[in-house]
Amino acid sequence: MNKIYVVGIGPGAYEKMTVEAAEALKKSDMIIGYTVYVDLVKDHFPDKSFLTTPMTKEVDRCVLAFEEAKKGHVVSMICSGDAGVYGMAGLMYEVGEQYPEVELTIIPGVTAATGGAAVLGAPLIHDFCLISLSDLLTPWEKIEKRLLNAAEADFVICLYNPSSRKRHDYLAKACDLVLRYKSEDTVCGIVENIGRDGEGYRVMSLRKLRDTEVDMFTTVFIGNAQTKEIAGKMVTPRGYRDV
Amino acid sequence: MNKIYVVGIGPGAYEKMTVEAAEALKKSDMIIGYTVYVDLVKDHFPDKSFLTTPMTKEVDRCVLAFEEAKKGHVVSMICSGDAGVYGMAGLMYEVGEQYPEVELTIIPGVTAATGGAAVLGAPLIHDFCLISLSDLLTPWEKIEKRLLNAAEADFVICLYNPSSRKRHDYLAKACDLVLRYKSEDTVCGIVENIGRDGEGYRVMSLRKLRDTEVDMFTTVFIGNAQTKEIAGKMVTPRGYRDV
Ligand SMILES: C[S@@+](CC[C@H](N)C(=O)[O-])C[C@H]1O[C@@H](n2cnc3c(N)ncnc32)[C@H](O)[C@@H]1O
Ligand SMILES: C[S@@+](CC[C@H](N)C(=O)[O-])C[C@H]1O[C@@H](n2cnc3c(N)ncnc32)[C@H](O)[C@@H]1O
Repeated sequence: MNKIYVVGIGPGAYEKMTVEAAEALKKSDMIIGYTVYVDLVKDHFPDKSFLTTPMTKEVDRCVLAFEEAKKGHVVSMICSGDAGVYGMAGLMYEVGEQYPEVELTIIPGVTAATGGAAVLGAPLIHDFCLISLSDLLTPWEKIEKRLLNAAEADFVICLYNPSSRKRHDYLAKACDLVLRYKSEDTVCGIVENIGRDGEGYRVMSLRKLRDTEVDMFTTVFIGNAQTKEIAGKMVTPRGYRDV
Repeated sequence: MNKIYVVGIGPGAYEKMTVEAAEALKKSDMIIGYTVYVDLVKDHFPDKSFLTTPMTKEVDRCVLAFEEAKKGHVVSMICSGDAGVYGMAGLMYEVGEQYPEVELTIIPGVTAATGGAAVLGAPLIHDFCLISLSDLLTPWEKIEKRLLNAAEADFVICLYNPSSRKRHDYLAKACDLVLRYKSEDTVCGIVENIGRDGEGYRVMSLRKLRDTEVDMFTTVFIGNAQTKEIAGKMVTPRGYRDV
């Protein structure tokens, strides 16, 4: 059998993973992933072989997985959150075109948006968008257009990759665009290290968010016109009419 | 202790739930939910008391949970998918304002978007929006605006509540709006009964999707300009530049 599971392990440690994900890892001979994710699950699967690769070598990591599967090993490729959200699932299908004999199974996981939402309260509830502020693979004009359109249509907006060493001012830039359509009193929130050591959250206005420094282990939430603060939590009602 | 867990059980049966969700249910004295969801998990928690309520009586279901928690029972309120995505988490905070002595904990789950994406391949990967086509609590003009803005900015679009008995033509209406900006060859997909008996998926063009009948247990995916079909699966690349 030539089989690869592409497994979203959820935002944090073992408990955040689905029962099905844990079972896929148990069935695997070899678990491949970026060092940080391997460290999050390693202790729960002591009898497995682990292969770690650096963050940037993503195509190499995919090829490695297929080559091991070709040899007959059952392989799990692990990603944080959900492998289908800014994750490796797509690239695995692309690289997999060269390996038709290998069967791919994607095991979904809790993505940072819903994992972080649970920490903040209930910010998503209604229609929302996920936008990555990373312009590594996407032209900034495209990101800008999405921010503007999402803000204009009053979506709740969830920002991934809100910052990096090179992009420390991107969150401020994004907020300035969103402020063209959303009030500066819009209720917003940030969550750091969801499900991991150092988990923390803050609820604040869009005005305040604009001048907040965040790091790459943070997910940012910008409410819609109905979003409110209830007992320190960020809560979006289900609709625009009374329930 | 007055404690309620609001638990997303994932799109399907037991295995789709996180380890943490299963633990919360184990710690509970009483599990409350809509009949269909209770039936999905019941057999795994034989020693619990279950309370089911009809779909529509949502405020009543919340009040019931708080009243039971007030008596000292540890209560889990279960939702399909993630409780924070068109789910009960928001309403629980709103009703909870009357019960300051009860502590709420939200346990995230795999939502239909990422659960369905795993079945279809990797349709989400890049920036995407969730839009519900239900106009029960949202004016149709608002839904229309969101569809147009999302299509114009080339988001991948994931539609929840794409149909109901009264709204059988809503998917066609939504596709007509999206077609103002997206090509009729855009790669789309639908997934029915994610993680449940009768799970099935189809990949098709936007043109074809427009004339497809779906039911309320379906989640619909409309690709972006880069989305392609690979070996029968729906795959969105990570960005707009070569990897
Ligand atoms: C390349 S994306 C990977 C997303 C992942 N596949 C998922 O579904 O959550 C990385 C971004 O996701 C968000 N993120 C992922 N895990 C997180 C965590 N544990 N806490 C906070 N943010 C997280 C951050 O915005 C981070 O910059
Ligand atoms: C009121 S919403 C609830 C969403 C849920 N809280 C979640 O996070 O998945 C109901 C809609 O979600 C989608 N959905 C939920 N579970 C599904 C499943 N198992 N298969 C397909 N679609 C599902 C359908 O579009 C359905 O009309």
